[in-house]
Amino acid sequence: MTGWLAVAGLGPGADDLVTPEVQAALAEATDIVGYIPYVARVAPRPGLRLHPSDNRVELDRARAALDMAAAGRRVVVVSSGDPGVFAMASALFEALEGAPPPDFDIRILPGITAMLAAAAALGAPLGHDFCAINLSDNLKPWALIEQRLRLAAKADFAMALYNPRSKSRPEGFARALDILREECGPDRLISFARAVSTPEQALNTVTLAEARPDMADMRSVVIVGNSATRRVGHWVYTPRSAAP
Amino acid sequence: MTGWLAVAGLGPGADDLVTPEVQAALAEATDIVGYIPYVARVAPRPGLRLHPSDNRVELDRARAALDMAAAGRRVVVVSSGDPGVFAMASALFEALEGAPPPDFDIRILPGITAMLAAAAALGAPLGHDFCAINLSDNLKPWALIEQRLRLAAKADFAMALYNPRSKSRPEGFARALDILREECGPDRLISFARAVSTPEQALNTVTLAEARPDMADMRSVVIVGNSATRRVGHWVYTPRSAAP
Repeated sequence: MTGWLAVAGLGPGADDLVTPEVQAALAEATDIVGYIPYVARVAPRPGLRLHPSDNRVELDRARAALDMAAAGRRVVVVSSGDPGVFAMASALFEALEGAPPPDFDIRILPGITAMLAAAAALGAPLGHDFCAINLSDNLKPWALIEQRLRLAAKADFAMALYNPRSKSRPEGFARALDILREECGPDRLISFARAVSTPEQALNTVTLAEARPDMADMRSVVIVGNSATRRVGHWVYTPRSAAP
Repeated sequence: MTGWLAVAGLGPGADDLVTPEVQAALAEATDIVGYIPYVARVAPRPGLRLHPSDNRVELDRARAALDMAAAGRRVVVVSSGDPGVFAMASALFEALEGAPPPDFDIRILPGITAMLAAAAALGAPLGHDFCAINLSDNLKPWALIEQRLRLAAKADFAMALYNPRSKSRPEGFARALDILREECGPDRLISFARAVSTPEQALNTVTLAEARPDMADMRSVVIVGNSATRRVGHWVYTPRSAAP
């Protein structure tokens, strides 16, 4: 049997946001590898082995997936959203650096990442130049996050903030909000999108003056508008032109 | 008949990157509205009216779509990639500002945007914080583009550059490359991804020293690595950790 490895994005949650490409890979797989709640999104079937693992073991998980593919298994590593955005694809290539060159096929299968599903649910807040910043300081110093927030504000980017808030560092997001208020002023719009595309979806748009840290949790992506972002009806959008 | 309007992302080109949600909307539509080459991607069927229009008439197109939905039609405005990323969703909300509040349903249906399909084909160059900048100066002054490129480089964002090169402004991308060389140095990796996911897909990764303006055309998205972006085998990826 010829093995292969695919790193696949399951999208933000809804089944009808999983691409046919990813569905086909899941249907052909012998093994599914990933973080527990993402593996739980794959329907079990006879002969399909599930390998759920805990958070923060991304490199071990990637190495195990490479070993299985080398042994002839058809392995899908599943990520939420898109595998290339703060997810498993980079971990896989990190693992590959220390491994023998693979003699099997490796594919990265894109998915709908959280910020784009959230933007669609809100309207079009990322309709002009924007950036994506992971607020977790597990893998980078907090000072760098702060610097990036300030430079992104100076560039007048709309911003998508991933992993805004975790139990292990509840104070980080409060500091991020303070920095954003300093750089962008109190009237800037900020949207909290939780569990987008699932039955628990919740959307909340306020000004930075009104924003509180507890408006975000681990299932939220946060979108900060640029200086031109505005409301129309219940929608939030950023015009295509630069701010006047 | 109750009309509705959906702005749908067709993804970068391959049929198996169109989400089931978008497929369902296309199957229920009475009218398809969009730029000529995107409307051409929708299979004709009896009773389905196609309304292709030229580039740079986005507001007129959005107004026509709103009028049709108000008249009871089921209208899908199609965009390539994701409708919220440099595409039709913002134009729709701009048109809505001058219109009576709609009494019909409006939905934005996300899609796989070009940078994420390109990143997946290349490896994982957007695996750390990144930004997306539209290099077209149709709707913003060139000085703002230049400022954003410099601030993005200072923030050490990986960058996805949309619309790098058009016939009407061939000099812009050459200037962008000069700025990137100044800010990021000659060894930074830059990837040119053309017609991703189609039979004409072409990928080319070089250093900024080697990069030439004619490596990009109107069907390209360009991805500039951050200071830690590197190659492994034929892949390009950005590690999850910040640069050392």
